[in-house]
This record gives sequence, C-alpha cells and structure tokens, in this order.
Amino acid sequence: MKNVAIIGPGLLGGSIAMALRRKSPESTLSIWGRRQETLETVSKSGIADLVSTELSQVVAGADLIVFCVPIGAMGEIARKIVPFLKPGVLITDVGSVKGPVVQELAPIFESKACFIGSHPMAGSERAGIEAAQANLFEGAVCILTPTQESPELKKLRGFWELLGCQVRILSPQAHDETVALISHLPHLIAATLVNLVSNTNAGAMQFCGNGFRDTTRIASGPAAMWAEILLSNHDAVKNFTQAIIENLREVVTLLDRRDLDGVQALLTNANHQRDLLRK
Amino acid sequence: MKNVAIIGPGLLGGSIAMALRRKSPESTLSIWGRRQETLETVSKSGIADLVSTELSQVVAGADLIVFCVPIGAMGEIARKIVPFLKPGVLITDVGSVKGPVVQELAPIFESKACFIGSHPMAGSERAGIEAAQANLFEGAVCILTPTQESPELKKLRGFWELLGCQVRILSPQAHDETVALISHLPHLIAATLVNLVSNTNAGAMQFCGNGFRDTTRIASGPAAMWAEILLSNHDAVKNFTQAIIENLREVVTLLDRRDLDGVQALLTNANHQRDLLRK
Repeated sequence: MKNVAIIGPGLLGGSIAMALRRKSPESTLSIWGRRQETLETVSKSGIADLVSTELSQVVAGADLIVFCVPIGAMGEIARKIVPFLKPGVLITDVGSVKGPVVQELAPIFESKACFIGSHPMAGSERAGIEAAQANLFEGAVCILTPTQESPELKKLRGFWELLGCQVRILSPQAHDETVALISHLPHLIAATLVNLVSNTNAGAMQFCGNGFRDTTRIASGPAAMWAEILLSNHDAVKNFTQAIIENLREVVTLLDRRDLDGVQALLTNANHQRDLLRK
Repeated sequence: MKNVAIIGPGLLGGSIAMALRRKSPESTLSIWGRRQETLETVSKSGIADLVSTELSQVVAGADLIVFCVPIGAMGEIARKIVPFLKPGVLITDVGSVKGPVVQELAPIFESKACFIGSHPMAGSERAGIEAAQANLFEGAVCILTPTQESPELKKLRGFWELLGCQVRILSPQAHDETVALISHLPHLIAATLVNLVSNTNAGAMQFCGNGFRDTTRIASGPAAMWAEILLSNHDAVKNFTQAIIENLREVVTLLDRRDLDGVQALLTNANHQRDLLRK
C-alpha cells in the first residue's frame, strides 16, 4: 500500500495512521477530517503526510481508502469521492455494522473501485484522536465481509495483518448477527444496568467494586455513535434482547423455586464457556 | 490486633494474611483450613505463625477472628469455636451477603464475643490461596454491617483500613439490597449472557473483543460459591432481575419504534452515570 487515505481521524482512523507510520514508514498517508481543529492536532502529531478538509485532495492517488467516520456519514462521502478515485483503488471501512454499509457503498463504487467491508474489533469506551494508539490493533480480531471473490481480499487481509489484527471472514449478514450477540447486546445490557442502578439507588454507585466497573465499562462508549450502530443492526439486536429477556425470566423461576442446583448449573456452564474465551 | 485467626485460607483469607504480614509484622497469625494440603501450601508460604485443622488451636488466644469460608459453612464453625473464645474477642466475616450471616452468627456469639459483619469488595473471578495477593484490598470498599453501637466497630474499621480498604457502614439489609444491585445482579447477567452466546452461536466466541471479555469477566467466578450467595440474597436478587427485565422490555420497544433519540438518551444517561464511577 503505497498511498493510504484515511477518512476521519477519530480513535480508529488515528490509530490506523499511527500504526501505519510505525509498521510501514514508506507509505504515504493522507487524512481527511471535517473539522480544521482536529486536523491541526493530527498535523502536529506528524502521523500524516497530508491533512485536508478537501476530500478530492485526500483520495486522489490513494491505493487504499479507509472510511473511519460514523456509518451514517459514509454514503454522502462515498458519492463525493467517486470522481476522484484512482482506477483499481481498494476501499474499506471500519464500521461496526456491515450489512447496511455494504448495501449502501458497494453500488456507489461498482466498477469504479473495489469495496470490501472491515470491522476491526478494537474499539474502546474512549473516542477521538486523543485516545488513538499505534498498538490498538495488536491481537484484535478484524472481520472482513467480502461479497465476492477478488484478489483485493488478500491485499486487505495483508493490510490488517500488518497492523497486528487476526483476520476472519464472514458474510455481512453473519457478521451483523455475530456482533449483535457479542458486542451490541452486551452494550445495551451494560447501559441498561447502569441506568437501573442509578435510578434505583444512586448511592449504591459509591460501593461499586471492580466487577461492576468491568461489567459496565463499555457503557461509557460514545452514545450517538452507539445509538446509530444499534439501530442499524435493529433486527438482530432486538431478537437477542428478547432472547436474553427470556433467559432472565428462567433465572427468576430458578430463584423463585430456590433451586440451588439449577442456579449452580447455570453458573457452572457460564464458567466453562467463559474460560474457553481466555485461551 | 495482637493475635489474628483466619478461618479459611482462600482468596480472601490468604490475602488478609499476606497483607497483615506486610502491614502489621508484629501480629501473630493463626490459620484454620479444612484440608491438610492447602495448609501445607500456606505453611510453606510463611504467611502464618500457626496453621491447623483444629479450630480450638487456631482461635484460642485470638483477639480477632475472621471467617473466610463460604457463608453456608459459617454456622457450624461458629458453634464449634464458642467454647474456646478469649473473652472480648472481636469476630467478623467476609461473606458477600450480610443479613443471613448476621442473623445466624450474632446469636451464637451473643455475650461471648462481639460479632460485626464485613464485606470487603475485593473478590475477583479467581479463587483459592493461589490467587491471594497482599495488595488485594488496596483501595477496595469494605462495608461493615454493625447492628448496634460498640467500641469494637472502631477497632474493626481500623483493621480494614490497615489493609488498605475504604470502610463504609450499612445495615445488613441495606448492604444486601445494595450488593444485589451492583454485584449479584451483574453476576447473573454476565453468566446469562455467556450462556446465551454459547447456546445461540458458539462460534461467535472466537470473535469476542475486549468489550465482551470485560463485560463477562465475573462469570468466571466460582460457581458453587456464587450460587450460594445468589440464593442467600434471594429476594433482592429476584426483584432486581425482574426490574432489569422490565427495563430491557422498554429497550425492545425503543428498537421496535426505531427510536434513535430514545436509544441515544438511554445511552447518554448511562454514559453520564458510568463516568461518575470513574472519579
């Protein structure tokens, strides 16, 4: 990747730039941002060769363009850059939902560029260029969601692996169902739990130990971005929320029956499954 | 505290011993354990002056006795040690539920010793002497649940503060309602979430990022101990489980209506409340 353009210098865009500077010092890096102020921070940090609020300037000559803006902003930017694309350019994004993104962007770039969705699962509860780090992607899983065979897939895989990611391939739909379960539902639950505690007994917050801190850490993530993610993946998130409601109802039944064995079986299974995760 | 007896050398008992050795080297430490094997580990570690499977040996001469066994095992041990107590001895425990413990132990020790419940909120998903650490209590909240005024409360507070805890006072009932909300319910939710993921799509576990890891870390805690805790605090845990089911139902309604503002308001409130926790 000789010329890389990053659209949006937030946590992920900034971290990609920092990681590339370190891992591929020969690459030329252009960064587009909406706000002059953020671009000045980026400029001072020295992580880019070019920073601009002009999309045409940033994407011209790029071999790889990475969309790191909120998913709702991608369509408009995609349409704007089409006239300035270098033939054969590879385009990807880092959005947390893939079905709607692929559905919207793929037709815009059809025949003009190759678009393959990416989802590096390296977000955190922090946001913005201030939180960016060169090692953000080390060991993180990155899911790619190609919709057809192409030599560009290998290129894109190589890009994320260079940054330290473990690459996995899923269809956009399988991706969205998977992350609804392991990311979007947990986010909703963490937020709902924090709200329940603060509404029921705000004083209880001062007694919280590390357990509660860890369990609810993701609830500190940027609200507007997450609301958009949850609604973009509406069906799967709703189905799994209903599923956990059902499962919690069964827990209430166990508690009602004072069923020690039943509760212990539930916790033992969770123990076992959770420990598989560690390895 | 010249002579301290620890009943049960698990994560908490072992950590108390290690912390005392460091912070109060002049104290004499006796540890009771059920299994000879564990006691040999304790003995080799040099954290105790006396280790024994004989309760009478361990509690004789103690100024402070700390019960660090599962709550279901406390009553029987309490009855056994009564004949060997030094007059004026202060007794406490580290159980995660206080109402049933205080109700059971206080009458056993009445007029023979002063019993005040403690709950150092310093557990982790790990268990056993192998996981013990001298700094486990640094900065942890420890809730004391006295049922009457007594000079011993000041002594007990001093003990936990010496170990690094921030001491808070609650009634046993207020304690149990508080921890149901910030510890027991989160534990049940984490376990239920892990089970839902593994039952719905076991393959999804390989895609899990740090968010899921943190959210479900407590689900790795010892199952038998936690089943006992949850059932000992049955009413409060059940009420709050029903409350979060109601709140999740409201979330489903928001998703059904594709109510972006509503979801964002929910997440923004959680953001705000969660951030208060950090300070």
